[in-house]
Amino acid sequence: MQRYFVSQNAIAGDTVTISGDDVKHIVRVMRMAAGDEVIVCDGSGQAFRVELTDLGDTVQGRIVENVAKDPEPAVKITLAQGLPKGDKMELIVQKGTEVGIADFLPLDMVRCIVQYDAKKEAKRRERWQKIAKEAAEQAHRNRIPDVREGVTFKQWLKTVAAYDLVVVPYEREEALGLQEVLTNHPEIKSVCILIGPEGGIAEDEIEQALAAGALPVTLGPRILRTETAGLVAATCVFYHYGEIGGGEK
Amino acid sequence: MQRYFVSQNAIAGDTVTISGDDVKHIVRVMRMAAGDEVIVCDGSGQAFRVELTDLGDTVQGRIVENVAKDPEPAVKITLAQGLPKGDKMELIVQKGTEVGIADFLPLDMVRCIVQYDAKKEAKRRERWQKIAKEAAEQAHRNRIPDVREGVTFKQWLKTVAAYDLVVVPYEREEALGLQEVLTNHPEIKSVCILIGPEGGIAEDEIEQALAAGALPVTLGPRILRTETAGLVAATCVFYHYGEIGGGEK
Repeated sequence: MQRYFVSQNAIAGDTVTISGDDVKHIVRVMRMAAGDEVIVCDGSGQAFRVELTDLGDTVQGRIVENVAKDPEPAVKITLAQGLPKGDKMELIVQKGTEVGIADFLPLDMVRCIVQYDAKKEAKRRERWQKIAKEAAEQAHRNRIPDVREGVTFKQWLKTVAAYDLVVVPYEREEALGLQEVLTNHPEIKSVCILIGPEGGIAEDEIEQALAAGALPVTLGPRILRTETAGLVAATCVFYHYGEIGGGEK
Repeated sequence: MQRYFVSQNAIAGDTVTISGDDVKHIVRVMRMAAGDEVIVCDGSGQAFRVELTDLGDTVQGRIVENVAKDPEPAVKITLAQGLPKGDKMELIVQKGTEVGIADFLPLDMVRCIVQYDAKKEAKRRERWQKIAKEAAEQAHRNRIPDVREGVTFKQWLKTVAAYDLVVVPYEREEALGLQEVLTNHPEIKSVCILIGPEGGIAEDEIEQALAAGALPVTLGPRILRTETAGLVAATCVFYHYGEIGGGEK
């Protein structure tokens, strides 16, 4: 959306008055009309989505929402995580929530060391959801990530097409970097990152994931533990799209 | 360095023979001579730095080193970490080692909750060094990161000039993104990342760090815990320079 900077006294209540050269730009260059929307920044870090109401010698608009301070990433990341041992999932949920992951999906995979047990899982899921809530509060997020009910790898396969992109960090993939994949997908809204459990992803699973449309990627020559890989991959995705380290938008 | 792909049978021992169109490129376009170096990839993920020895109808070269398989990042990251509570430093060292941090420097800072105690520290440092060793092995690194002896913030300040770049993720910095800083530093060999303890960095400390040449950066609108911030910042730095997710080099 087109952005315009105004002085702070150009904003009164929810009314914005744009003047000067920007008026010409809005009316003549962009050929906007009442009802069109722009982003207005007041230079202090505040940014508003503004609906234009009146276009004359000055342009008037109405603030629809404050957009600068929404800490939720525009790219939604689902972490499909092969169920790890012990309390590693707690760390995964806590750290993943901090960086901005949208939801967590525990997966029952071939090389999972813990046997998936639906009854036990319900209890653990309650605990993970609580960790997500606390981490979201601490991280100043507006939304608590979902820790979804665990599914089998086969069930997950059926959902691959629902994402704009599905990437699988995989030790044996050496050529295709995550960076190349993201560069080739400049405008996506949803990414699913598939991370195998401690034992890794079985060859059969990789083949099925690829057949379903997932892309195998390398995160580099250093091998990450299962509880680290998703966090690192998510951080890279957010960095790539300016959601981490991108500065003012 | 210029890269050329050859078939695997173009490599015999430490001798490489480049033929076909690449010869023209090396001789006419790049105007290389004996003694110049190129990267030769055999398509299987192997890559070699090759010194050219003979340029004629084919180009002969001698392998100087295998460059594809060195998992050590070209950019050395030092994590200067305000000493955190409890066993958080263990997590920081373990995860930081996995992603590729070169060394860890515990810092005694104003808002540290634990009192720095040199005697206790020696013991803890031994433990952290052991964790670094195990994590380095597991991550297939060639080098064990150093966990250096803790220093005071004032002592650290004197070392700022020794790095090509020093960044300080800081909550109150909203405009300058890490990405912008890294983009402005395309060729650096060393970065120090300063992370405050749980209570954050004191204003006085930020001012002194900036005066010494450190740059305050934002990692984005979500607030990261002290044990997460360094890992995330290091991941972003490595991603930026292609050390994580960059694919084949």
